Amino acid sequence: MSVWSAAQPRACFPLLTQQSELIWLDSAATTQKPLAVLDAERAFYEQINANVHRGAHRLGHAATEAFEAARSSVAHFINSPSRQQVVFTRGATEAINLVAHSWGGSQLQAGDEILISMLEHHADIVPWQMLAARTGAMVKPIPLTDALELDLDALAAMLSPRTRLVCVTAMSNVLGTRPPLSRIIAMAHAVGARVLVDAAQALAHDVIDVQALDADFLVFSAHKVFGPTGIGALWARMELLEAMPPWQGGGEMIARVSFDGTTYAPPPLRFEAGTPAFAQAVGFAAALNWLQQQDRSAIAAHETALYQQLAAGIAHIDGVHILGAPHDKGPIASLAFATAHPYDVAQFLDNADIAVRVGNHCAEPLMQALQQHGTLRVSIAAYNSAHDITRLLAVLAETLELLA
Amino acid sequence: MSVWSAAQPRACFPLLTQQSELIWLDSAATTQKPLAVLDAERAFYEQINANVHRGAHRLGHAATEAFEAARSSVAHFINSPSRQQVVFTRGATEAINLVAHSWGGSQLQAGDEILISMLEHHADIVPWQMLAARTGAMVKPIPLTDALELDLDALAAMLSPRTRLVCVTAMSNVLGTRPPLSRIIAMAHAVGARVLVDAAQALAHDVIDVQALDADFLVFSAHKVFGPTGIGALWARMELLEAMPPWQGGGEMIARVSFDGTTYAPPPLRFEAGTPAFAQAVGFAAALNWLQQQDRSAIAAHETALYQQLAAGIAHIDGVHILGAPHDKGPIASLAFATAHPYDVAQFLDNADIAVRVGNHCAEPLMQALQQHGTLRVSIAAYNSAHDITRLLAVLAETLELLA
Repeated sequence: MSVWSAAQPRACFPLLTQQSELIWLDSAATTQKPLAVLDAERAFYEQINANVHRGAHRLGHAATEAFEAARSSVAHFINSPSRQQVVFTRGATEAINLVAHSWGGSQLQAGDEILISMLEHHADIVPWQMLAARTGAMVKPIPLTDALELDLDALAAMLSPRTRLVCVTAMSNVLGTRPPLSRIIAMAHAVGARVLVDAAQALAHDVIDVQALDADFLVFSAHKVFGPTGIGALWARMELLEAMPPWQGGGEMIARVSFDGTTYAPPPLRFEAGTPAFAQAVGFAAALNWLQQQDRSAIAAHETALYQQLAAGIAHIDGVHILGAPHDKGPIASLAFATAHPYDVAQFLDNADIAVRVGNHCAEPLMQALQQHGTLRVSIAAYNSAHDITRLLAVLAETLELLA
Repeated sequence: MSVWSAAQPRACFPLLTQQSELIWLDSAATTQKPLAVLDAERAFYEQINANVHRGAHRLGHAATEAFEAARSSVAHFINSPSRQQVVFTRGATEAINLVAHSWGGSQLQAGDEILISMLEHHADIVPWQMLAARTGAMVKPIPLTDALELDLDALAAMLSPRTRLVCVTAMSNVLGTRPPLSRIIAMAHAVGARVLVDAAQALAHDVIDVQALDADFLVFSAHKVFGPTGIGALWARMELLEAMPPWQGGGEMIARVSFDGTTYAPPPLRFEAGTPAFAQAVGFAAALNWLQQQDRSAIAAHETALYQQLAAGIAHIDGVHILGAPHDKGPIASLAFATAHPYDVAQFLDNADIAVRVGNHCAEPLMQALQQHGTLRVSIAAYNSAHDITRLLAVLAETLELLA
């Protein structure tokens, strides 16, 4: 396996180059952007910019081609059987809301059950609670084991013919936990339930193959995988998309409109009302193309090594520990403190130009299960280096000594 | 009144500078972007990029400040009493869908009536049809006079205590018509109905003051007013926003989440689930700031002069005329041909590097009223010049002679 050096990728990221002292360990909130992404979006605005799917001129045709090529890049990145199965949204959150409103609103009824892992982000909880309130369906949390893994025995006991959907993250944004997706999906399918996978955190780290995974719905955001804000996607099985009614109405998503009645376009356009974020789609594709040009298994090994360095270092500092030790986890660590307040610690880190995140990480139910008000989260990406972790550990040790 | 020269603003737009022969008369589909917008968005990504409302570090604070300052810029541009009344959306279309789902879904019931002007874009028709299908409310079109004005006598006869909402554009994207908004709003308010104004087309041309207008809801898109794609806004009266339930669920829009029940944040965050398009918000503010630094009344006079040049020129060409001659109109013209097919004409224009739009312009009901399958639309913006119109007229005359 080749060795990944973070010096070269850091040089690809203008913000990290210009702020050479900055240690960015908040990639789970948002990643920095490689020059290739900024250049692609800017070149689009400077050379092509025109509205899509409406071209009576060369720029309109070129813009439509660039937008649909971006859709193909996204489809290719997750090994979708076709690009028509990729629906552009503002991000993972809107993608889940789309499924909840369109699929959930048309398919679910009182007594149906939606099982949601206790690891989920609010984005994968609140839309289902709102759907439950509209339809009478029930939302039930899938509990954790003492080791903070998803409790698959409990899941097995909860699954029944009433189960219509299981919602699970591919990587916890708080703990880094990777639930055993293939096993969960097989268990859910065995009772006829569908599975929605939140890949927002995983996509920057893991190779996601929707066909190998056998998922039904998969959602993600560009800004967490080196791409622009304002865009993300829903992937779904074609037969599900074809049966789903539209959610938002407007231009682009219609076949014909009249005051006597309106008919709708096939997927994916049926779900893309209004002018799409086409310049951001081009930037999104540039981000995925940039990532695909790297040695992804070397990046994964590099991130794992940094995580191990972090875990080994934390074990030697008094008054702090990493929450949970799941069997399989990505490069995200939530730190809990014996006495120090995480906000105070983060302030000292910030003064040393180390950016981490503190709080409930949009995962209050998980925080309740962890019996934590908030944690200090360290999240690692391809551009981090052993130096970053060494420096974090040193400042953390100093800070805890000072606050003790 | 000062005279506006299009040479200086054209120089602000990299695409128009780099493609010096291009004549962009498709601004009603999307506008080109000034350098100030591209630079603002890029500087944000290169210097500040961090997720908002979550800062445990200096970049997080700076990003939140930039995002909320962008909200203040948008609020200021339309004279909103407060920035909390500006909800960021993907664009005008999503803003209308938000009102239809949240306000409409909670307020309307069977028998209620929604009156929609025949001038409206599909984005201001389809969401209301979908709402009507869910609630049993009725959608009724407000017809046009023979002069293609909104028929206010017909509107007066249609308004009743059953009327809950009147939807009207501030400027038709097909004909340029400016309906008499103040009069329509007063008529609607007199029966207790609310008014939604679609300002997507008007915002680049007219000074919109939500307080002077006395509107209830106003929607618009950044990409039609020199800003980025992927962002727009809903403005609404505070008391309406406060009473509206959330539409999309996720991070940012909650107060507390648990599997026992969830409570929501106040507006505007209640309506902004998930990571917002914060880099695009910064670009949007830069676009509005750029426009505000120009002499807007001089731009308006310039656009009117170009429209008059166009109208006078068309009157001298056989086989083509401008549809409608409303009392008050913006710089948009829909051309109809005696025998030529608009797509053929547009092809000849494109060959001469003149970009216009052909089709139904996402306004099929209006096309039916006009008895047209499609028109060729010429839309003028601040960066157009008398040369652009002269050249369009010359190529149009040649083309129609050739096709005759």
